[in-house]
Amino acid sequence: MSFLQACRCEPVERTPVWFMRQAGRSLPEYRALRRDGDILDAVRTPEIAVELTLQPVRRYGVDAAILFSDIVVPLVGVGVDIKVLPGRGPVLDPPFRDASDLDRLRPLEPESDLAPVLETARLLAGELDVPLIGFAGAPFTLASYLIEGGPSRNFARTKALMHAEPTLWHRLCSALADIALATLRAEVGAGAGAVQLFDSWAGSLSRPEYLRYALPYSRTILDGLRDVGVPRIHFGVGTGELLDLMAQAGADVVGIDWRVSLPDASARVGEGIALQGNLDPALCLAPPEVVEAATREVLAEAKTLPGHVFNLGHGVLPDTDPGVLQAVVDLVHEETAR
Amino acid sequence: MSFLQACRCEPVERTPVWFMRQAGRSLPEYRALRRDGDILDAVRTPEIAVELTLQPVRRYGVDAAILFSDIVVPLVGVGVDIKVLPGRGPVLDPPFRDASDLDRLRPLEPESDLAPVLETARLLAGELDVPLIGFAGAPFTLASYLIEGGPSRNFARTKALMHAEPTLWHRLCSALADIALATLRAEVGAGAGAVQLFDSWAGSLSRPEYLRYALPYSRTILDGLRDVGVPRIHFGVGTGELLDLMAQAGADVVGIDWRVSLPDASARVGEGIALQGNLDPALCLAPPEVVEAATREVLAEAKTLPGHVFNLGHGVLPDTDPGVLQAVVDLVHEETAR
Repeated sequence: MSFLQACRCEPVERTPVWFMRQAGRSLPEYRALRRDGDILDAVRTPEIAVELTLQPVRRYGVDAAILFSDIVVPLVGVGVDIKVLPGRGPVLDPPFRDASDLDRLRPLEPESDLAPVLETARLLAGELDVPLIGFAGAPFTLASYLIEGGPSRNFARTKALMHAEPTLWHRLCSALADIALATLRAEVGAGAGAVQLFDSWAGSLSRPEYLRYALPYSRTILDGLRDVGVPRIHFGVGTGELLDLMAQAGADVVGIDWRVSLPDASARVGEGIALQGNLDPALCLAPPEVVEAATREVLAEAKTLPGHVFNLGHGVLPDTDPGVLQAVVDLVHEETAR
Repeated sequence: MSFLQACRCEPVERTPVWFMRQAGRSLPEYRALRRDGDILDAVRTPEIAVELTLQPVRRYGVDAAILFSDIVVPLVGVGVDIKVLPGRGPVLDPPFRDASDLDRLRPLEPESDLAPVLETARLLAGELDVPLIGFAGAPFTLASYLIEGGPSRNFARTKALMHAEPTLWHRLCSALADIALATLRAEVGAGAGAVQLFDSWAGSLSRPEYLRYALPYSRTILDGLRDVGVPRIHFGVGTGELLDLMAQAGADVVGIDWRVSLPDASARVGEGIALQGNLDPALCLAPPEVVEAATREVLAEAKTLPGHVFNLGHGVLPDTDPGVLQAVVDLVHEETAR
């Protein structure tokens, strides 16, 4: 259980490693099982979702599994008509525009709204010998999909709404925080041993924006998990300017990308917080010797951390050769064995 | 000439302001003149390019004009078959892959290869009563278009090449640096009073990558302009972790985005360096009172800077209401008048 120990800044036998999007299109067995089917159908079918969750654990020997799902699944669960398009991501038409759209969100009732996901978690708990990570989307990142109607480069509508209609923004993000918290508590109840809060796009915000419009709602979620006792990982991309705040939101582990070195990031998040990261997933498409050198560099930088979970700085890219990731797992395990 | 004075950290009568992509689709007069034509055709037609450059100066009363061109124009000038697709950006097929592709770049002969651009600059010098900014793409950012074949989210091929084939990378970026330097020197010779080096995507690099694979080539360009005596602006998006290095590359002004506050950025770039920025262009799509508050916030943060050029943190978004930008210009001028 070196994964949970590292998250808690406790001594480990070796550095744990897992990969964001380890269950994904980079795996031939994943493509064979998923084919062209809707990802939401796969999430809703526990025997498929269990198998997709297990595939990378079986193949790589990673130290944690992550529930096969998507951050929009709880929103779909409460009736929001989101589709997840291959190569594009979540889309919603019409997107959220005004207070009337709040009616499109009702409180989550996990046992019914997330029944297949929780069934998947329960089945996995019986099969896995590594911890299962549950996850949810943070309110800012989820709100951006609802308001933009899909992935965005500049989040212009989302930012306009948060600044121009802070009361509506507050109601929206409070509802999203409640849904995310209910999701994560239910996943832990069903067997998840850790949780990750994805605020993937928070790095697009200024510090004042993050402080006012994102942090309070992420804190609701992370604080609301304190009594559950599982490690809480808080992740975003390009968040170098926000790392102290992301830690203050209530994280045990902060996930970082390759833009910040691990020692710098550790100084920013403060004492007693573990780090997760930070190999550049783009480098995993380079020749093996480049990946090996970059992996060794991450391990060298991690030596002074109170706790380190090896991961990529963002999700596995679909074109990644699984053999490359296998070599990373093996190298991390070999080099850090005590 | 408050723009040049601000760039040089000299006292100004009022804070100068211009906008990246101020000549662009947000202006109805731009859309009327450009219609669906190829942007490269417009760049190659001096009377059109002059008019497009002048439009925002005339409309807004900004304190600088920027030559209507594109960072790929010098590459097209030496014969690289790049197209610029509306809504997509520069594309190249086949992209650069190996050493044989270096033959696709020859040294730039500005007077012939950039004849229309230089003619545009000369015509503008006779018409403008504000400084003209010439510009070029930095080697990393240009190389990324050549290697990816278009815009990229993760720059995986570019990063693979720089790490796996550093000698090829060196030859490619040395050639690109020579082309950019020749471009900028010629533009200054034709009347540009300042230059901006766009390393728009440098923020995707780690510090070690930037140090090894980007900075030396940008330094070649910026150092190579020292004797020319015009202010050198160095800009990228999401470059908070790199600001000290971007200044060290030889900039008089560093352009920053909204992710870093102006005082923080000033501490990072060091003494005697002016800053350009940093209003979030996404906020310009919010209601006027939001834009006004955000503009005042930038001005308040700028008070302690040695030199400040007001700008956005990235280019004007096409959906921006020109009236909003006019209000920003007027507010900056009013609030900072000495």
